[in-house]
Amino acid sequence: MKEPPMQNWDSLWCNVNLATMAEACGYGEIHDGALAIRDGKIAWIGPRSALPADYHATEQHDGFGGWITPGLIDCHTHIVHAGNRSNEFEARLNGISYEEIARSGGGILSTVRATRAASADELLQQSLPRVLSLLAEGVTTIEIKSGYGLSLEAEAKMLQVARRIGATLPVTVKTTFLGAHALPPEFAGQADAYVDAVCAQMLPALAAQGLVDAVDAFCENIGFSPAQTERVFRAAQRLGLPVKLHAEQLSDQAGAALVARYHGLSADHLEYLSADGVQAMAQQGTVAVLLPGAYYFLRETKQPPIEALRAAAVPMAVATDCNPGTSPMTSLLLAMNMACTLFRLTPQEALAGATCHAAQALGIAATVGTLALGKRADLALWAISRPADLAYAIGHNPCLAVINAGARRTPRNS
Amino acid sequence: MKEPPMQNWDSLWCNVNLATMAEACGYGEIHDGALAIRDGKIAWIGPRSALPADYHATEQHDGFGGWITPGLIDCHTHIVHAGNRSNEFEARLNGISYEEIARSGGGILSTVRATRAASADELLQQSLPRVLSLLAEGVTTIEIKSGYGLSLEAEAKMLQVARRIGATLPVTVKTTFLGAHALPPEFAGQADAYVDAVCAQMLPALAAQGLVDAVDAFCENIGFSPAQTERVFRAAQRLGLPVKLHAEQLSDQAGAALVARYHGLSADHLEYLSADGVQAMAQQGTVAVLLPGAYYFLRETKQPPIEALRAAAVPMAVATDCNPGTSPMTSLLLAMNMACTLFRLTPQEALAGATCHAAQALGIAATVGTLALGKRADLALWAISRPADLAYAIGHNPCLAVINAGARRTPRNS
Ligand SMILES: [Zn+2]
Ligand SMILES: [Zn+2]
Repeated sequence: MKEPPMQNWDSLWCNVNLATMAEACGYGEIHDGALAIRDGKIAWIGPRSALPADYHATEQHDGFGGWITPGLIDCHTHIVHAGNRSNEFEARLNGISYEEIARSGGGILSTVRATRAASADELLQQSLPRVLSLLAEGVTTIEIKSGYGLSLEAEAKMLQVARRIGATLPVTVKTTFLGAHALPPEFAGQADAYVDAVCAQMLPALAAQGLVDAVDAFCENIGFSPAQTERVFRAAQRLGLPVKLHAEQLSDQAGAALVARYHGLSADHLEYLSADGVQAMAQQGTVAVLLPGAYYFLRETKQPPIEALRAAAVPMAVATDCNPGTSPMTSLLLAMNMACTLFRLTPQEALAGATCHAAQALGIAATVGTLALGKRADLALWAISRPADLAYAIGHNPCLAVINAGARRTPRNS
Repeated sequence: MKEPPMQNWDSLWCNVNLATMAEACGYGEIHDGALAIRDGKIAWIGPRSALPADYHATEQHDGFGGWITPGLIDCHTHIVHAGNRSNEFEARLNGISYEEIARSGGGILSTVRATRAASADELLQQSLPRVLSLLAEGVTTIEIKSGYGLSLEAEAKMLQVARRIGATLPVTVKTTFLGAHALPPEFAGQADAYVDAVCAQMLPALAAQGLVDAVDAFCENIGFSPAQTERVFRAAQRLGLPVKLHAEQLSDQAGAALVARYHGLSADHLEYLSADGVQAMAQQGTVAVLLPGAYYFLRETKQPPIEALRAAAVPMAVATDCNPGTSPMTSLLLAMNMACTLFRLTPQEALAGATCHAAQALGIAATVGTLALGKRADLALWAISRPADLAYAIGHNPCLAVINAGARRTPRNS
């Protein structure tokens, strides 16, 4: 008798090339490949010529000679927020100073006010178009941070909206609690007292509601000190939650070494990362999340130490940092192009940065991020002639189809 | 008896704000406006409260509280070409030098080879996805240059494909003959002989076929000299065709003053534009076409003299420069963001750059580029809260609907 399970598939993709991203270097290219899905997972993958003779596939899909990659993963976003800051963007370009904008209530606290004032439904409605932009480009997993609520209630609202996005749209959402993002006005001058509230009240309560997949902080001169950040990390540790950090964006605070010491998933931004920080990350396997959209939008000139990260074999991820103040970006493909154009990543590194390394930055590399047997069938099909096309094109979306845990959708922007 | 024509409309848009771009400064904002269309032209425009009591509109459209702008105009593209150069992009990022790439057949001549080798149908099929990307973002007019054929036959093929795009898609196409783009291999070492062929054979023959709306050249150390450029301009002048110029991109060749002297529509790029060039453009009304995508992709550091252009009241347009070698960009909204972020245009200047000033750069400002009585009803409807949102967002397409000469289409990317 035949053993049916392994070769009885829900669907099979042929007439397609595969960039598995599962090899130590290169794209893991399989030309004229085949990929089979069963129960939402990859059940077979290889050259079409190696397909077993006796398979059965309920559905057969034509890849039109394009390429299948792992579904893209945007591992650093603040995509849930109310309002935007195009008024500040315009004011600055009309010569209004940052100080005047801050005096007139602008800056991050304007987003905090708008996010607090919005109902959960309003927050969801305002965030959806941004999420849909990402999904249209083959994104199948998004990290979403809190950090514009800055109170238990408002942070909970943000994280609940993030969960609703994951529950209602074809996307996996990983939530990150970023209570230590900015000092809320009611704690002005009392940063330590606010960190107390973050650690003792907000984080435990939100974690108890199942709203927190990871914990983050903004460690910076204009944010929280390394000592305050470490208190947040200890609170996370007590709850068994992984940590990550906005580190070394505007100055070297040794935040990368700090988050590495706490076995952090990732250190993000890293323009001012030191050689010591690189080594600490390499030793702990902490992912370097590059955010070229913020670098571009802020017109930074100091680049993250890409050569040193590469030499130390620190995995590099690439994300949009989608946020209203410093990176109003909703295209992960464009972030990939900027990582190449501005930071000199190779197109292969950029694609790894939006797939396997992004998965690692979220602690989910065991289930997604590469095309491999047993991984969740989160895939994107692209009308491209080679994988480098994804990072090369600027403002073009060649996504033909997206598959979420085996279920196909069309990549429409609505 | 009533006089029916003025108030008997084919369609009427309400519940919408208007950015007419028809005022000397600002967006020409009309909040809660109305816009009526008859015979493909704008038949009424103003505040809804001022609508006449006795109008009749065959169709009524709801703008959902969004904004209508003039349809966007991409006034500088090389969008018709075969192949792409992602392989070179990848090779350079992997450390291969420009020289090695050139030795192995890369650079512009690889696009010339691919474009010559493609049939007209193949050229059309390869160009369509790029054009559709632009159209999805509310673009209603595109300029398309030749310049990868570099022979009468191949240049004719490119321009015919450009005409087919205009005939088959909902977009107005203006063609530009750019025979003097690069020296074809069969004329190596004989630039003057090639310019002879451009002026005496190619241009007259193509113009006779109705394929040429304007004439352009690449005036640069690595392109054609000012003297050679002037010969092309004189040939255009003899045929009564307007001229424009790739000027001052990599060095100051006094090309802007040259094209201004020939009453040119535009001088494009302009990173190395001199004060004299600014004055010449201002005196002749030559539009400055800014191409921030090429500046970004080539990692240039010298910016066009925006302050001087502004002070001299030279109209500034913004375009994608869509081309495979130096600006593989198919998003005019992103070009607008880059014009603001990299060149410090205001969002209003960026929108003028993609509407009224782009129309001026194509010599069609009398018919399109603003929302005004009698202009062609080329419109875009946007899900935005203020006009500045268009230049602020990075990689987001808020286009809800596009109207071409009064006919509505959905802005789908396919
Ligand atoms: Zn961030
Ligand atoms: Zn050009």
